[in-house]
Amino acid sequence: MFQVVRSSPIPLADQLVQGMSSLIESGRFTEGARLPSIRLLARRSGVSPFTVSVAFERLLARGLIESRRGSGYFVAPHHSAHAPIAVELGPPPQADLAVRFTHSALEPRDIVVPAGAGFLPSSWYADALPAAALSRNARVSAAAPAPAQGDGALRELLAERLHVGGVPAAARNIVVTAGASQAFDLIARRLLAPDDTVLVEDPGYFVLPTQLKARGIRLVAVPRCVDGPHLGLLEEAARLQRPRMFFTQTLLHNPTGTNASPANCHAVLSLAERYGFLVVEDHVYTDLATSPHVSLAQIDELRRVLYVGSFAKVLSPGMRVGFVAAPEALVASLVEAKIVSVLSGSALVECVLREVLASGTYRKHVQRLRERLSKARSLANQELMHAGLSVETSQCGGMFLWARIPAALDAEVLWDQAWQTGILLAAGPMFSITGGSREYLRFNIAYATEPRLTRFLKEQCEALAPSFTG
Amino acid sequence: MFQVVRSSPIPLADQLVQGMSSLIESGRFTEGARLPSIRLLARRSGVSPFTVSVAFERLLARGLIESRRGSGYFVAPHHSAHAPIAVELGPPPQADLAVRFTHSALEPRDIVVPAGAGFLPSSWYADALPAAALSRNARVSAAAPAPAQGDGALRELLAERLHVGGVPAAARNIVVTAGASQAFDLIARRLLAPDDTVLVEDPGYFVLPTQLKARGIRLVAVPRCVDGPHLGLLEEAARLQRPRMFFTQTLLHNPTGTNASPANCHAVLSLAERYGFLVVEDHVYTDLATSPHVSLAQIDELRRVLYVGSFAKVLSPGMRVGFVAAPEALVASLVEAKIVSVLSGSALVECVLREVLASGTYRKHVQRLRERLSKARSLANQELMHAGLSVETSQCGGMFLWARIPAALDAEVLWDQAWQTGILLAAGPMFSITGGSREYLRFNIAYATEPRLTRFLKEQCEALAPSFTG
Repeated sequence: MFQVVRSSPIPLADQLVQGMSSLIESGRFTEGARLPSIRLLARRSGVSPFTVSVAFERLLARGLIESRRGSGYFVAPHHSAHAPIAVELGPPPQADLAVRFTHSALEPRDIVVPAGAGFLPSSWYADALPAAALSRNARVSAAAPAPAQGDGALRELLAERLHVGGVPAAARNIVVTAGASQAFDLIARRLLAPDDTVLVEDPGYFVLPTQLKARGIRLVAVPRCVDGPHLGLLEEAARLQRPRMFFTQTLLHNPTGTNASPANCHAVLSLAERYGFLVVEDHVYTDLATSPHVSLAQIDELRRVLYVGSFAKVLSPGMRVGFVAAPEALVASLVEAKIVSVLSGSALVECVLREVLASGTYRKHVQRLRERLSKARSLANQELMHAGLSVETSQCGGMFLWARIPAALDAEVLWDQAWQTGILLAAGPMFSITGGSREYLRFNIAYATEPRLTRFLKEQCEALAPSFTG
Repeated sequence: MFQVVRSSPIPLADQLVQGMSSLIESGRFTEGARLPSIRLLARRSGVSPFTVSVAFERLLARGLIESRRGSGYFVAPHHSAHAPIAVELGPPPQADLAVRFTHSALEPRDIVVPAGAGFLPSSWYADALPAAALSRNARVSAAAPAPAQGDGALRELLAERLHVGGVPAAARNIVVTAGASQAFDLIARRLLAPDDTVLVEDPGYFVLPTQLKARGIRLVAVPRCVDGPHLGLLEEAARLQRPRMFFTQTLLHNPTGTNASPANCHAVLSLAERYGFLVVEDHVYTDLATSPHVSLAQIDELRRVLYVGSFAKVLSPGMRVGFVAAPEALVASLVEAKIVSVLSGSALVECVLREVLASGTYRKHVQRLRERLSKARSLANQELMHAGLSVETSQCGGMFLWARIPAALDAEVLWDQAWQTGILLAAGPMFSITGGSREYLRFNIAYATEPRLTRFLKEQCEALAPSFTG
């Protein structure tokens, strides 16, 4: 009950405060109940009496417990006895599926198997940041704000990396962002207006439509095929809907893991030119690619393509750093949107990324990550097929598996059942603005072989037999 | 047909471009039709010929109209037929003064004396982050995403600090943000809607109005007095304008450096209750206060007050970390807005802040900073008065001096002249949505004694004598 975890990064006193607060707030410690003495609690939890007394001070300060002279500590009377005042609270939370999923996925305490998670396990990133990257330079960097567009030296490094990938971006084309999410947000805020029409891939990255809808933008789905967006339907949508933009993920598409072919890329750009729309190319998985590839930004030379990159998936989910490389005429607008929303990015984070990219460690880390993913992918394939799912494997890569469930199952029903047992699934319809992909689940390769998950999936698939016959 | 709205936050040229674009795109202006002359259009719309010519330039750039030498302007052939890259670039940068100032202030390479800067020199923050704060824990933290609401242990620490300041916030009331700016952005995005009316202090923090206007919000100014907002005019605005929110800075108000009195705080809250508006209390300078103070959030107990804090001014301009403590019913909306805009904050930054706050170094750093500011303040007072400015000193504190220039000078003209010599000034009108405070400059105490600055000011003040006589 008062167990602390010595290896945790959370200080011991904090752990005690958290544990006891939740016991009190959940009502398991009732009002007026007497707490164990400092000495007893210290012995039971394996911490010093001083640590316990620090924790008690904090609980006292919060009004959760009371001290009665000579008799010890007691749970305080219920502390939120306020008569609330009716304030106009604005619109209620949208409880959008993408938002709810993201919220859960980022709060790991309730999750036993994060099978649908968008990030790899933290142990996979353990070697990514060398100690040197958080040295004196990083501390010094925190003492001054970053330029709104992002640290100049970092943008130079990013431009160099883009050049290697064939994208002719200069530092002045680049705006550093808090991950790809902020890049999409800035684009939606400043380059799009309410009631604009935008094309998105279906299935596709699931937070993007929520971001665009929050801006009042009209979305039109373009089905995603193995070799890229469906060209016939893209053309039809472009002709009939006069979109301002098309958001697409050419490489290691989320959730399907497929790559757009060079011919498909060429055709997409031709349509963009013919119908006058901009293209936003989400390229956040580029460093996980194991073979050479073509990108839209490369063919287009950043004339009507905005290229979005991120280090959240490959280097560090916890830094929140990415960028957008844009045609020069659009950069000032994006920087302005950044100033208006967050003033500037974190100079500390930008410095750490700069140090990592300038050292040789990033390349090695990426190499290891690719090898590990490749091994894990074949294991995961096997396990999921054994459980009764089918996985389309050819020409797919990255960190996800897009697996088809038996036709009699429904991905959202499965999602709900799995959640009861502590398994977080990513159900197909979450990736579809048309409510499609009901027969698919997206698996994070690193978690797809967890016995608890595969057992659950197998049970669900096997349970079908009786329901068919009965 | 070409009517513009002078009171709109949208620049007049933008309004013309929007209006004419939609007439052309909807087909009401047909291909080849001749447009009215610049002069005629200017007269009909009540704007200057220059504004019309700016709008025409933009329409030309977008390929919507054509200029034929000697005959005027015509609607271009249907614009999607263009061979060249007629990309719709979205609205041009607003070139808002606050945005331009911020952009310059964050790009220090052009600035010799950042006299108007919003942050202290980086050397003043040099001891703020102990080496231990960027140790192994911070690297480990970067390997997993932060919860959308912010690290739980950090929120516990922030809640404790608020308790010490008398604000009864629990960790569940707190949303960690990328500085106060992101807190304002999340509030504007999710708790306000376009066309809502919001009250702001005049003069007041200058990026906030830009953030609110970007959301289409109507702003009404409430004059700021020495002891807080002007109560009579606040009441009048509340009664006549039915605002949804009032943004105020009770402590070490930016730019004036004044504190709201306890009686003023009480009266503001009474008005908020009577007229049913929420209050956002910007409290980012709280740790620079040298004497006890009252806050709205403390009296109100977080029922209709949202309390915004930040570590950008006191601990680290380069980390970008702050928070909002809100009534519990509003927290989910703010977290949702955060997910939609950036997914989550930086776990690395949140971990570093946690380590700093849990150690004793922060308290010592703050103590040193206060002493240094207090010494620098009296020196700066002297120097500025010697140069010919007058400074209201009583009851003021913090990191700024709000200095009055001689009546014959204009702050914006001075700003422009100073910029030519590498001095960044912060001119009074930037802090005023009514174009007021033309006789004021805001000085950063740390730079106010720079000889180049004081020499410039003295020259400007002394130059007045001849111009009066001549």
